[in-house]
Amino acid sequence: MVKVGVVGYGTIGQRLADGVALQKDMELIGIADVAPTLPVLALKEKGMPYNFYLALSENKEKLEKFGIPISGNLEDLIKKCDIILDATNAGIGAKNKKLYEKYGKKAIFQGGEKTEIADVFFHGYANFEKGLGKQFLKLTSCNTTGLIRTVDALDREIGIDNVIITIVRRVADPGDYHRGLTNALKVDKVPNHQAVDLMLVMPHVKATGTLVHTPVTHGHFITVAAKPKKTVTKEAVVEIFKKHPRIRVVKIEDGFLGNASIFKFGRDLGHPRGDLYEVFTWEETITVFDDRIIYSIHIPQESVTIPETIDGIRAAMKMQLDRLEAVSLTNKYLNIKNINY
Amino acid sequence: MVKVGVVGYGTIGQRLADGVALQKDMELIGIADVAPTLPVLALKEKGMPYNFYLALSENKEKLEKFGIPISGNLEDLIKKCDIILDATNAGIGAKNKKLYEKYGKKAIFQGGEKTEIADVFFHGYANFEKGLGKQFLKLTSCNTTGLIRTVDALDREIGIDNVIITIVRRVADPGDYHRGLTNALKVDKVPNHQAVDLMLVMPHVKATGTLVHTPVTHGHFITVAAKPKKTVTKEAVVEIFKKHPRIRVVKIEDGFLGNASIFKFGRDLGHPRGDLYEVFTWEETITVFDDRIIYSIHIPQESVTIPETIDGIRAAMKMQLDRLEAVSLTNKYLNIKNINY
Amino acid sequence: MVKVGVVGYGTIGQRLADGVALQKDMELIGIADVAPTLPVLALKEKGMPYNFYLALSENKEKLEKFGIPISGNLEDLIKKCDIILDATNAGIGAKNKKLYEKYGKKAIFQGGEKTEIADVFFHGYANFEKGLGKQFLKLTSCNTTGLIRTVDALDREIGIDNVIITIVRRVADPGDYHRGLTNALKVDKVPNHQAVDLMLVMPHVKATGTLVHTPVTHGHFITVAAKPKKTVTKEAVVEIFKKHPRIRVVKIEDGFLGNASIFKFGRDLGHPRGDLYEVFTWEETITVFDDRIIYSIHIPQESVTIPETIDGIRAAMKMQLDRLEAVSLTNKYLNIKNINY
Amino acid sequence: MVKVGVVGYGTIGQRLADGVALQKDMELIGIADVAPTLPVLALKEKGMPYNFYLALSENKEKLEKFGIPISGNLEDLIKKCDIILDATNAGIGAKNKKLYEKYGKKAIFQGGEKTEIADVFFHGYANFEKGLGKQFLKLTSCNTTGLIRTVDALDREIGIDNVIITIVRRVADPGDYHRGLTNALKVDKVPNHQAVDLMLVMPHVKATGTLVHTPVTHGHFITVAAKPKKTVTKEAVVEIFKKHPRIRVVKIEDGFLGNASIFKFGRDLGHPRGDLYEVFTWEETITVFDDRIIYSIHIPQESVTIPETIDGIRAAMKMQLDRLEAVSLTNKYLNIKNINY
Repeated sequence: MVKVGVVGYGTIGQRLADGVALQKDMELIGIADVAPTLPVLALKEKGMPYNFYLALSENKEKLEKFGIPISGNLEDLIKKCDIILDATNAGIGAKNKKLYEKYGKKAIFQGGEKTEIADVFFHGYANFEKGLGKQFLKLTSCNTTGLIRTVDALDREIGIDNVIITIVRRVADPGDYHRGLTNALKVDKVPNHQAVDLMLVMPHVKATGTLVHTPVTHGHFITVAAKPKKTVTKEAVVEIFKKHPRIRVVKIEDGFLGNASIFKFGRDLGHPRGDLYEVFTWEETITVFDDRIIYSIHIPQESVTIPETIDGIRAAMKMQLDRLEAVSLTNKYLNIKNINY
Repeated sequence: MVKVGVVGYGTIGQRLADGVALQKDMELIGIADVAPTLPVLALKEKGMPYNFYLALSENKEKLEKFGIPISGNLEDLIKKCDIILDATNAGIGAKNKKLYEKYGKKAIFQGGEKTEIADVFFHGYANFEKGLGKQFLKLTSCNTTGLIRTVDALDREIGIDNVIITIVRRVADPGDYHRGLTNALKVDKVPNHQAVDLMLVMPHVKATGTLVHTPVTHGHFITVAAKPKKTVTKEAVVEIFKKHPRIRVVKIEDGFLGNASIFKFGRDLGHPRGDLYEVFTWEETITVFDDRIIYSIHIPQESVTIPETIDGIRAAMKMQLDRLEAVSLTNKYLNIKNINY
Repeated sequence: MVKVGVVGYGTIGQRLADGVALQKDMELIGIADVAPTLPVLALKEKGMPYNFYLALSENKEKLEKFGIPISGNLEDLIKKCDIILDATNAGIGAKNKKLYEKYGKKAIFQGGEKTEIADVFFHGYANFEKGLGKQFLKLTSCNTTGLIRTVDALDREIGIDNVIITIVRRVADPGDYHRGLTNALKVDKVPNHQAVDLMLVMPHVKATGTLVHTPVTHGHFITVAAKPKKTVTKEAVVEIFKKHPRIRVVKIEDGFLGNASIFKFGRDLGHPRGDLYEVFTWEETITVFDDRIIYSIHIPQESVTIPETIDGIRAAMKMQLDRLEAVSLTNKYLNIKNINY
Repeated sequence: MVKVGVVGYGTIGQRLADGVALQKDMELIGIADVAPTLPVLALKEKGMPYNFYLALSENKEKLEKFGIPISGNLEDLIKKCDIILDATNAGIGAKNKKLYEKYGKKAIFQGGEKTEIADVFFHGYANFEKGLGKQFLKLTSCNTTGLIRTVDALDREIGIDNVIITIVRRVADPGDYHRGLTNALKVDKVPNHQAVDLMLVMPHVKATGTLVHTPVTHGHFITVAAKPKKTVTKEAVVEIFKKHPRIRVVKIEDGFLGNASIFKFGRDLGHPRGDLYEVFTWEETITVFDDRIIYSIHIPQESVTIPETIDGIRAAMKMQLDRLEAVSLTNKYLNIKNINY
């Protein structure tokens, strides 16, 4: 049993903890955070299914006020683990890295950290092998993770020369009060970082793209115009996507009208927090035009990186050496079912 | 075991079904709807925990296309039940009522139907006794249900002469595409229907109020200025609210910044769909000024009426004759815990 | 002086009236609508600069209540005009067309009507010649109008083989209460109608695209990936756009952060209603990648079709026979200045 | 001619400059800002109707790049003026005050500065006399300015003992990218600062209130429950409001559905930027209930403080000694017409 700790118990950290707890070949040692945030209060109300480690000792009294049992400090957690999933705010991971080095532990950072923090910029499906045995991995960000799933799926079957993307980015998560837009779109300069990041993970594919921030919370939306190395039909593209367990093909005509339908669907499925691990594509948005495959995807930004991060544990710890063996196990324990209609 | 059917499997119907399924003294016979909507597809993906009855026979083929087993038609469901929870779209309930009458069954309608549809306009806490043994009940709407909880709680302890309310109404549920506002507030004429409805359920309290629609999805917000019959301190008001299992007192300073914090908290608690049955009030919004108690509440519009509807089953079926006995049982089975910090 | 009437005094109709009133070689005979809407009340408060014709006689009393002088009915207006700009709600134009035919008058319809209503689907820059002397013209819709400006500009200089577009559509105009989205994106099936419409006006260019509705009011956003017939540099593309009077090139770094910056800029410029006739492109979004030119544009949906509609008058009435002579005159009278930094 | 300078040319500063320029007994010497912001670019495109003074010398080159003529630095402007309207970002005014003191000039600060900055916390209608001859005035904020207009109007006629308010606050101005909320309401602790500020300006009236931030840009919305000193009818309240030139009474049934209708109406009226100086109340929201007058108002946050700031010039410079004489002159030059239907 690989021993895992989660540092930073926010939007991503909570989901990482839940995901690790489901892996039958991993043990979640505990989670660490600095204060009795709402996620920590929720953990308390759920009966402390995970041990809590306090990363900021001066807040001890605040935690005790809420009756939250403290299992130790951040270093106590690190010492007990084989690998740490660092889901702290951007920039904190770089500081924490020194602790991981001090104790000779492995760690996986999330997309907010700089790429230089890690030995490899990792994606479970696209470059699993590069993560094998490495000490430090950095996951691709949510948009890039979902995007690469689809580009990698196409690339392995038909070869992809380059992609042009437009990202319609959700600007805040549900519950975010520290950022937001009101009745405004915001445009970034071209190329966006997701295109650049894609090329880092898939260096044989060229990419560029435009990103526009929109005032919604329920998922990013990406249109892709991918140039394949051989001609292909829409039907073939649909089949490639349908075979992929972490890509779900749905239809507008069935009621999947947009990001909010999918967010609601996840809740109605009864998943904890209504989370979905799959990216979604709409069959009616897939077409072949001129020399390009065009399709749109929905990225559930809160949960999409969980599977690939767990793949990262498998790679770093060499739990499996084969890409498909590893991701299949992650999928199985996360109950990703590959349902298509 | 009282046999219950749910007709209409949308936002409210799904939650009613889940709530009834949790009641150890009730049996959920099944749910009925007209088409393979996303909630019905989600039911299918969950393994059909509830039997599905098709209320529109011409859609049989569509259901079969998705492999959804059909247990019968609407009348088949009605015949098997003691009582029906009708959660269809506004206006449909009036048509369905004829079927309920035909088979001599009881039914509870939701707030969208006209008040005249039922023998009593019902609220579990405020007028439980009026529902005892009645054939047709209509629940108060989501805003009115939550509002009455708080006014009734105060009224039973200190007497309330009248209330002035301002409702900041969420304009659509998450996932709604058939209605919405974009960067606009919309004001209704005074008094709003919630004030009028409150007076129907609590005829000894006068009420008026203003309603403004806002482009958000995560919960209504109400400010109340209630005139008590005797003077009271803020602390006493807080205590009254804290004693009430379906009212939760939280603090802005603990991180409950607004409706979106609460919506997120419900998800982080791991509740199915992230649902919350309680209304929330912020301690920092409670004050006593001049001759009035002032406070603000958050209404989780998707789920708030579920407990009172189940109370309605208890009243209509005379499962309990005592108000507090009935609501306590509902609370217990719904796992409403009365947590306050 | 060509005599012009405007039927339908809503968002577009008001702006058409103002635009025509500025043309020194046209006379605005009056405007027609059915009720004392807010635009009509605003006209009254401005001192009735335009004559009002009542298109629904039973509303006469309502108009008189507000003291609005009535110059006649719809047919009275039609009889006095050489050409009618029909800016009524979608579907009404088809009914009005019979009146225009009855009196042998020309008319220009807006994008909401079906293409079959007119003799030509018109765009001032792209196919001016096709409108010469025609009785009935239909303008391209706001998105298509702005999009074609840019594609036509490129096509005339370097030739365009095809375009792939993604439209991030504003879902309602400021002040709209009859439509809206709240925290939701909505996706349409591919290809969107704007791509189809582009091919109708520019049949030698192939087009496809994706459209996603977003909950904002201040302008559509389009990314274009255009395949030119010869290679071109980014700088050359910028120069082509800068030469075009109805396309404005701005920079993100100068503070044009997105649609809301541009909307505010129009207001700060002191234009009536803050309107802008130009589409905007951001220099930082323009790039050349693989075999495609990529750029993004902002469409001020309320006012963008005004210049091309006035071009339509010039074509239908044969006021000018030359495309550039006609559009230049429209630009001059509308005070479109071609400013770039 | 009183010589006026405007320091800070943002949302408020631009409108102050335009408002002063309309006053026939004042001369606008110029405006000052630190960089070629979009409002400054718009000024340039309008042909520099106002002289520009550069408050940050190191940005000289940036200004010159855009061809913007510079009339001097901040101190040059101050020296030429009798009084400065300081509309800089919160906190900057306190620094600038030292310069105003150095040159012995008067100044009026906006609501963002601390109240201690000035000799008097000023409102044109409510406490004009207190501003007479003072060196430093601070205006009430936008919400407080509009609110006080209505409370003062009632108070002068029938006496007001206290008010309970709920503010539904727009969270950003159109064009703001530095702040915003997305699908979230945010609640502040009670009392809000507007209630506290009202008591500072009208010390004989008690006040409390709740404030909730909403993700809209077009105007604040306030409900007021005011306790009059004598009984009054709804009709009398309507008449009091209708008599007030800076309060406009409209009807929902006429199409004024909410803040967005009013924002659009201002644009359709052809006002520069679509600005409105009046607060609006809806006749259908006015009622008398128990011992309170209830009504709702709309606050056009970008422009509502302009008239009272100009009143402040009149007071500080002793241009008029009589309250009504002063505000009437401001109204006349601002073309505030007191239209009601």
